Amino acid sequence: MSDARSVVVGAAQLGPIARDEPRAKVVERLLVLLNDAHRRGVELVVFPELALTTFFPRWSLDERAEIDAFFEREMPSDATRPLFDEAKRLGIGFCLGYAELTADGHHYNTQILVERDGTVVGKFRKVHIPGHEETETWRKFQHLERRYFEPGPDGFEVWRAFGGLIGMAICNDRRWPETYRVMGLQGVELILIGYNTPLHYAPDPSQDVLQSFHNHLVMQSGAYQNATWVVGVAKGGCEEGVDSLAESAIIAPSGRIVAQCQSNGDELATARCDLDACKSYKDTLFDFDRYRMPEHYRRITDQRGVQAPEP
Amino acid sequence: MSDARSVVVGAAQLGPIARDEPRAKVVERLLVLLNDAHRRGVELVVFPELALTTFFPRWSLDERAEIDAFFEREMPSDATRPLFDEAKRLGIGFCLGYAELTADGHHYNTQILVERDGTVVGKFRKVHIPGHEETETWRKFQHLERRYFEPGPDGFEVWRAFGGLIGMAICNDRRWPETYRVMGLQGVELILIGYNTPLHYAPDPSQDVLQSFHNHLVMQSGAYQNATWVVGVAKGGCEEGVDSLAESAIIAPSGRIVAQCQSNGDELATARCDLDACKSYKDTLFDFDRYRMPEHYRRITDQRGVQAPEP
Repeated sequence: MSDARSVVVGAAQLGPIARDEPRAKVVERLLVLLNDAHRRGVELVVFPELALTTFFPRWSLDERAEIDAFFEREMPSDATRPLFDEAKRLGIGFCLGYAELTADGHHYNTQILVERDGTVVGKFRKVHIPGHEETETWRKFQHLERRYFEPGPDGFEVWRAFGGLIGMAICNDRRWPETYRVMGLQGVELILIGYNTPLHYAPDPSQDVLQSFHNHLVMQSGAYQNATWVVGVAKGGCEEGVDSLAESAIIAPSGRIVAQCQSNGDELATARCDLDACKSYKDTLFDFDRYRMPEHYRRITDQRGVQAPEP
Repeated sequence: MSDARSVVVGAAQLGPIARDEPRAKVVERLLVLLNDAHRRGVELVVFPELALTTFFPRWSLDERAEIDAFFEREMPSDATRPLFDEAKRLGIGFCLGYAELTADGHHYNTQILVERDGTVVGKFRKVHIPGHEETETWRKFQHLERRYFEPGPDGFEVWRAFGGLIGMAICNDRRWPETYRVMGLQGVELILIGYNTPLHYAPDPSQDVLQSFHNHLVMQSGAYQNATWVVGVAKGGCEEGVDSLAESAIIAPSGRIVAQCQSNGDELATARCDLDACKSYKDTLFDFDRYRMPEHYRRITDQRGVQAPEP
């Protein structure tokens, strides 16, 4: 049971990574998941956002060197080389999130897509950076992504790989319908999303109990409304005192969850993703060329914030 | 328990309307729901799409006069005047869907919003017209909306009424994330949506068992991602041999369903909609001005159909 238009995908969820856990130790965990994936027939393993370190935006850091210590200057690096080598040896592709420091000094929240032969086929840099820029001492923990990361300059590209059309997004990107739609308009069939989502949202704690619901709601609607598979992979569990959402899931173009992690630790959930299943929606209800009405969507690109009607 | 920033809304679901059921009889049913709403403290009653007649696009009709008999040339008309009068007498606002034939010969699928004092404050004409133009004899029943209706030329407006910012959409509009977003960018707080949704979708019957799931998925994500109340109201039940989805629901800005009809017939579901509840999302996670990245959304307005990357 295999054809060129299906991909067996593994959502390789991670539990917490301690602040002092060296990258080599984390890579050992990734290798355990990779080997488990191989035994389960997986062709593409998806690791979470910032999969090599703890989620450092929870701390207010001022020293450049201390901040940059969480970033990768090259990929593969010495620490991640064993992952690249083993994946190539096994013939498994993977998607990996990490903090990227470019040669010319830019800081991005990045994910790369690596084909089964070891080729890096795509790189995505997070577009929607959540949180805040300045330290807010009233919070139990910080969410300083807007201090540490610039928004990705390249938007939402789609790549031909794994026999289909693959896109990527990171964490907060998944809450914005534009994310999926921009990729949907490129015919995307499989969107890979890593995330770190604290259960506690300090600006409005009434949202805390809804984190699981919202996580699946946005990915399921993004999948359905764009007729694409979506794979959402968490770093979950209690990391350095902060509880984070797990609930990694593989979602079909119907919007239905077809596989889901059960723990909030290191765990693999797998599903065979039939890329041709996208067609039953792309060619009917969501035939964009036939049914979309972009002349009435202008506000989406003409304005950034709300413009309410005159009183 | 009442203040200027909350509205008690009634989702006034209808069961089937027979092809030969005269408008006067239908209006009697609307009046029963209106009076029930009054007893339950409702300030705004929402009736479904094409609430005055059977869902006639299921038939292939060629005679102009036979088609136009399903359309209203004026609103209020003689048949609907009792509804307008009684609503004004009771001090209840309402939203009503009907087929509109304009003085200059345009055919629209229309919904109007009437304030508690009887003033018509808004008119919306369905933008996303589903179905097909030509008779397809292989179908068990037709869905000829694209023959009978032109797309609404005015897009998605938002009106100041009922102490807040109110928008409207009709049936298939609700499946498109752009619908909610265009209104979200005008600060919408309450979106009123009528629908007629056959359970059987002839072009891809695998979607049939998912109708209920999809209906709620798109409205719940539209509500959450735009921090707005959404009221979806069905004409449900078996109408002229065609089973249609009921499941009318009132959805909070959190995306959660807070009231839902239980039958597939004439039924009222009510909820107090606190319009200020929108703020907890509009001012935090979905602060559009702070977090949206429209420079990366260009495809949404620049193109209509899919443009896949070069092979």
